[in-house]
Amino acid sequence: MGTGFFAMSGALAANKKSKPDWFGVTFIGFITSIGGGSLRDMLIGAYPLGWVNDVNFVYVIMASIVLTSIFYNLLARLKKTFFILDTLGISMFTILGTEKALQHHTHYVVAAIMGMFSAIMGGVIRDILTNEVPIIFRKEIYATACLAGALIYILMSHFYFGRVTCLLFSTLVIMVIRLIAVKYHLSLPKFKEIQDAIEEHQPHTK
Amino acid sequence: MGTGFFAMSGALAANKKSKPDWFGVTFIGFITSIGGGSLRDMLIGAYPLGWVNDVNFVYVIMASIVLTSIFYNLLARLKKTFFILDTLGISMFTILGTEKALQHHTHYVVAAIMGMFSAIMGGVIRDILTNEVPIIFRKEIYATACLAGALIYILMSHFYFGRVTCLLFSTLVIMVIRLIAVKYHLSLPKFKEIQDAIEEHQPHTK
Amino acid sequence: MGTGFFAMSGALAANKKSKPDWFGVTFIGFITSIGGGSLRDMLIGAYPLGWVNDVNFVYVIMASIVLTSIFYNLLARLKKTFFILDTLGISMFTILGTEKALQHHTHYVVAAIMGMFSAIMGGVIRDILTNEVPIIFRKEIYATACLAGALIYILMSHFYFGRVTCLLFSTLVIMVIRLIAVKYHLSLPKFKEIQDAIEEHQPHTK
Repeated sequence: MGTGFFAMSGALAANKKSKPDWFGVTFIGFITSIGGGSLRDMLIGAYPLGWVNDVNFVYVIMASIVLTSIFYNLLARLKKTFFILDTLGISMFTILGTEKALQHHTHYVVAAIMGMFSAIMGGVIRDILTNEVPIIFRKEIYATACLAGALIYILMSHFYFGRVTCLLFSTLVIMVIRLIAVKYHLSLPKFKEIQDAIEEHQPHTK
Repeated sequence: MGTGFFAMSGALAANKKSKPDWFGVTFIGFITSIGGGSLRDMLIGAYPLGWVNDVNFVYVIMASIVLTSIFYNLLARLKKTFFILDTLGISMFTILGTEKALQHHTHYVVAAIMGMFSAIMGGVIRDILTNEVPIIFRKEIYATACLAGALIYILMSHFYFGRVTCLLFSTLVIMVIRLIAVKYHLSLPKFKEIQDAIEEHQPHTK
Repeated sequence: MGTGFFAMSGALAANKKSKPDWFGVTFIGFITSIGGGSLRDMLIGAYPLGWVNDVNFVYVIMASIVLTSIFYNLLARLKKTFFILDTLGISMFTILGTEKALQHHTHYVVAAIMGMFSAIMGGVIRDILTNEVPIIFRKEIYATACLAGALIYILMSHFYFGRVTCLLFSTLVIMVIRLIAVKYHLSLPKFKEIQDAIEEHQPHTK
């Protein structure tokens, strides 16, 4: 489900800028959808990769692209629904990605990073392909919410909560953080805004 | 042969825009040439990678770059020859990539995607490195031809045609589709050209 | 140490252009730092990856980002110190990367390429993420110095010099080449500057 939705989101994003043909849109939707998980699996060496091993991922993505085309006007208008589904998507991707990394015995900090990668890297690759500055550098709190949720999932698992409880609660945490961040336009503080000029500064003669 | 030719094509493309030095051109030629196959092998876990295991790929690429330099003016003028060789290159890369994926027991749909990736991803990475919109989003039917040829190869293999027959025929199919597409400027239909404006639309007060 | 320094360098570079928030800077610093080595390990199939297996890499990177923030003004002013540390960083990454590739029984030419990839690919990915033309296509002799040092390391190892001698000497070679190149603005010759116009040239009617 998350896979299909990410494909839709990728397709819509792809179409907004450069008006690609059907192949271009499908390609972008595909990459957005499987990019994050593939990168995670290649980093932790979790072969075979999900979509390489199970062709159903490919079918879901293709079906999503067709659905996006049919309901294009509807989807473009339902920005709120879309936003909520997107948030649901990244939340699920994060937690399932974290779980997979833990199963491959990575340290919990690394697992949280892998969970976040699962959720955001598809979008990052999409933005690179369409030659835009990746959205994670522009948005309200986004990847940080994923990271927080992943850590909460790990913490809860550690204290022997049931798997479903952990999944649901941590997914919820990510969604809530994200919803609040967007509603009140919260973003992390800027790194340093000052004094970059110093570097290029040369004393001027008068 | 395909490897060498892709390196040349990458070198020429690299040189057109940003006038890089010898290293830059060689680097781009190298990435264009081995990028698609490396990505495919990393996705299906086919270690060791071709060029990592066999240094001859590297030598062929370096020789191609030197040849490109020597015959630069000739190559730049022979656009038709160049185009036919490029088409031959992507056709062969597609079919050999598909074959390799099948040998690693992927589903045939995934194998076709892997074949296409082998052929186009080197160019996609090249375009990302040189900060351009990837060519697959701009061109006449290109990646779709690869996909079609890959599926035909798989279909023929399934019905016990000999390997050479399958290879030759499906390679030919890709070349013919591509040549016709370029000759008559055929491209896939656009996804949706309408109504993107809706999203940003705000009612104006008068 | 090299890891930490690369993270700082990435953070500073990230901050210069797009003024990202703390997450953005950390993300870029992280990718700059582990990108080259991760790509090398994924190419040669050297699982598990360093930072995936050892969380200390992550801690070092996070500490470096915090230090960069605290000493931002100082770092931005100390351009010379910075340059020397950066040179030290790429030198060490190159040689250690080459060594790792050799341990995985790659051909020595491939090992030298892998060493260079370790050193430069983090920066390349950083530049792609921030939507700039990768620095390796713009700078004075940079990647070529890495390649030269890697080959010297391999040559020395072959003749049974001790490991430490090889490491130190070849690291020194890279640093010296790089320092001289920057001091005297040396760069490799351009590939071909002429006659690109031919391709687009159309005879004008008068």
